[in-house]
Formats: sequence, C-alpha cells, structure tokens
Amino acid sequence: MMDKLYNTVAVVGPGLIGGSIGLGLRRRDVAERVVGIGRRACSLDEALEVGAVDVATMDMEEGVRGADLVILATPIRAISAVIPTVARYMHHNAVLTEVASTKRSVITTIRTGLAERSDIIFIPTHPMAGSEQRGATHASDDLFEDSVCIFTPLPETAPSALKKLKDMWKTLGTVPYEMTPEEHDRTVATVSHLPHLAASCVARCVNAREGQFAGGGFIDTTRIASGDPRLWRDICESNADEVHDVLAHLIEQLQTLDDLFSEGDFDRIQCFLADAKEKRDLIVEHLGD
Amino acid sequence: MMDKLYNTVAVVGPGLIGGSIGLGLRRRDVAERVVGIGRRACSLDEALEVGAVDVATMDMEEGVRGADLVILATPIRAISAVIPTVARYMHHNAVLTEVASTKRSVITTIRTGLAERSDIIFIPTHPMAGSEQRGATHASDDLFEDSVCIFTPLPETAPSALKKLKDMWKTLGTVPYEMTPEEHDRTVATVSHLPHLAASCVARCVNAREGQFAGGGFIDTTRIASGDPRLWRDICESNADEVHDVLAHLIEQLQTLDDLFSEGDFDRIQCFLADAKEKRDLIVEHLGD
Repeated sequence: MMDKLYNTVAVVGPGLIGGSIGLGLRRRDVAERVVGIGRRACSLDEALEVGAVDVATMDMEEGVRGADLVILATPIRAISAVIPTVARYMHHNAVLTEVASTKRSVITTIRTGLAERSDIIFIPTHPMAGSEQRGATHASDDLFEDSVCIFTPLPETAPSALKKLKDMWKTLGTVPYEMTPEEHDRTVATVSHLPHLAASCVARCVNAREGQFAGGGFIDTTRIASGDPRLWRDICESNADEVHDVLAHLIEQLQTLDDLFSEGDFDRIQCFLADAKEKRDLIVEHLGD
Repeated sequence: MMDKLYNTVAVVGPGLIGGSIGLGLRRRDVAERVVGIGRRACSLDEALEVGAVDVATMDMEEGVRGADLVILATPIRAISAVIPTVARYMHHNAVLTEVASTKRSVITTIRTGLAERSDIIFIPTHPMAGSEQRGATHASDDLFEDSVCIFTPLPETAPSALKKLKDMWKTLGTVPYEMTPEEHDRTVATVSHLPHLAASCVARCVNAREGQFAGGGFIDTTRIASGDPRLWRDICESNADEVHDVLAHLIEQLQTLDDLFSEGDFDRIQCFLADAKEKRDLIVEHLGD
C-alpha cells in the first residue's frame, strides 16, 4: 500500500480513454482503488466487465468524495455540467485532472467551477492517444504506451502534485511533456484538428460513383473523417480561433498550389511536393525514434 | 500452349507495376514468355531475380519484335521517348497497352506515335493498384488482387482484342471496368490526385516542433505525401485541367468551413462533418463488398 501513488482514483466517464486509464492503473497496481462514475448504467457495466474500475456509481457525490485523484474523462461538452458537483464534493487538497483534447477553454471552465475550492489542485493534461472506437469495451491498458502526455500546469500548480501525476502517466507508458495551454492549443490545431478537417473536406469532394474507384490513398487520407462529428464539433468550438488560423494556412497552401497549376509551372509544383515529402518524412522519422 | 492467352508479352519498364504484371502472368501461366525491356541493367537484373520476366534486354527493337502484346509500364514522362521505337518494331497486328495513371494526354501521345501503324491495336488501361515502393524487388503477383482495372477503349479498338486483354487482367485478380478517357481522368483527379495534393498541403502546414506531437491522424492523413515528387509532377502535368478543377472544389469546401468558423456556427460545422463522415463511411462500406 505504501508504494501506491494514489489511494482512490475516481474516473468520471470511464469510456475508451477513462477506461484505459483505469485498466492501466489497476493492472500496474498504481492505485488502491479505481472508482468509475458515469451517467449510464450500461457504460458502467462495460467498465466493470473489462476490469477498468473496481467499483462503479452513477452518484457523483459518492464517487468523488473519497478520491485523492479525480480524472475528468468525459466529452468536452459535459465538463461544465459535472464540475459544480465535482467541486462541491471533492476531498480537501485532492487533485483534479482532465484529459480533454483542447486546453484553454476547458481550463477556464474548470477554474471558474473551482473558484470556491482553492484547496483543490487542478492539473490539466492531454494524453495524445486514442482511437476511432468508443466505450470501455475498447479500452486497453497499453493505449498510452509510447505516446506523449502533454501537461499544461498552471502558475498555482504545486510541483509535488505535478510530479506525482507525471509519475502516474509514466507508469501508463507515456512520455510527459510540458507546455503552456496556448502552445498546446496551437499545436493540436495543427497536428490533429487540421488533418481532421482536411480529411472531411476531401471526403466531401468525392461522390458515390467516383468512390467506387477509391484506393488506399483516399482511404488513408480520409480515415479520421469517420470520427464522431459531435465530439469534433466540441473540439472545433473549444479551439475555434486556432483552428480558424490553421484552416487559413491550409487554404493558402492549396491556393499557392492552384496558382502554380494556373501558371502551368510544373517545376515548382514538383518542388512544392518535394518540400511536403521532406517535411513529412522528417516528422515520421523522428516519431519512430 | 493452346490455352495461353498470349505467346510473348513484352513489358517495357518492369518495375513495381510492370514487374508485378510479369510475375502474375508467369505464375498463372498466361503467356508463353515474358520479356522485360529496360534502360538500366540493374533494374533488369532485379526483374530477372524475382522471376518477373523470362528474359531481359536493353534493346527495345529486340524486345518488342516478337511480342503479340506489348505493355508500356514506364513512368508517364518516358512514354513519348519510347513510343517511336515501339511503333517501328512492333509485330503486325500486335496489341499495345499501357498502365499510366492518367489517360487523355497519354492516349494522344501514343496515338500520334502510332500514326503510321494502324494495324497495331492500342488499348489504354489503368490498373488501380500500387504502393509507395518502387522497383521489381517489391513486385508481387497478387498486387492487383481484388482491385479495379479501368479500360478506356478507343472507337477503333477491336472488341475481340479488348476481351482478351480483359481476360488477362482478370487472371491477375482485377475487376475490369470501362469508361471514357475523360471520365477516367476526372475520376482519378478526385479519388487519387486530390487526396495526394491535400496530404501534401497538410504536411507543409506542420513544422518540426509541432510534428513531435503528431499522432496516427496526421500520419495517415499525410501518408501519400511521401510519394515520389517526380512521378506526381508528371501525373499533375498530364491531368492538369481536371486537377485544377478538383483543387478549386476542395478550396471551396475549406472556405465554406472557414466561414462557419468566422460565424461561430458550430451546429452547421457539426452537420458539415457529419456529411463528410456519411460520405466516407458509405464509400468504404461499398469498397468492402
């Protein structure tokens, strides 16, 4: 017991991400107990069945009361609804963290909700892992293996609490990385939200007749366009200014390319494509390290 | 011998595609003999080594002379250089086919080259298969398994010769499909060239620092941007008007989306993304049939 990082961890929303965290913590014996909190009995049953949580409850008060770590793993839109109860019943000096895909607006929502609870230590994180699948049924204790977990600590975040949460994420296989919430939102707008929107736009350009002749290139390029539109709407909404900026950047690139077609300048089109290949190959090569 | 579709098949450019055709024909005993013709001894050695051809030569005249089927499998840019010799030495009434990724300009080039040889039966095709890899070393006799092979027969194409070539492609596992060269070029601009250019533009939007945080979404969306810029330049050049059109279509989609961000209309952004998902899911579902 002395070796465990946390006593009771409460996972609010034990779906794919929350369930994978619970599974990982339990398999690696990082916490004494993992409590799953959800709104639907069937989701909680799934979480119990796959072993993502020790106990499950639909009662938020009961779920968070005894926890020294509360992890919000709900969709972004649910955070503002759960935070008042979480803030009200969380244990004195306990740690609150969340795993949302965007940071600035989520941080504002949570900080506002915690106004009366300056004792609670809030640490925003973003584990950069996931899949198209949803629900604890698809949870896996190695979902986070070798992925980056971004921490965007706040000025008031206690270093010892930050270190402990990093240690927890390390046991789940992630590499912790620190940046500001602004830097985070800019980065994910570029590497995650932009590819998604580009994939969606490409998919919209192809009609059913043409689609019969689609091959691996189309399939791969548009894969993420099959993600949940509701979740992506929330991501777009909570990172709208940055996404707007990177969309403009992409339109600029396409316009430059289109101009080269107008001019019939195929030498420069080749250079344009060679530069893209070089940039991508370098990124993929570094990721492989 | 009586059962074989062709006596001697000459493959000009036995690389990934040409080599895979040769390998497939030899393994399935479709031709009496496969001759590989190339400009570089080491490429021909590779083709011989993997069993893609029975014999290999750098002498075009010698290579095409005895063939009843000549398959041009060189990069697009090489076609205009080889066609005069091919046209000069091809056997009377033999069949000439090619496997380029675009059709209209390639057909014009070849028809012009065949002006004095109205006896030669020219059948343009596009087997919709491939990979990022190059060279006969990566050739595989099942590369075309379950893929579509588009035929764009010309008004003068003899039906019996067309049927025989279709039979050959069927033995390689493809499903033959007929369309006009115009329809072909429009279709591939949308399902193949557009994803490539979109992938390249997305890759150019991400810098090396941001690239450290790229995940599966970025990797998949940009995968084809790592293709050979020289080959893609040729594809762009030989299908410039159609690619120009579909690029404009993509820019329009992105602009529509960007406007929704400006208006903060996230309901409509969700509909936009839902429509993209629906289109893509339908295409992928049909491909799986």
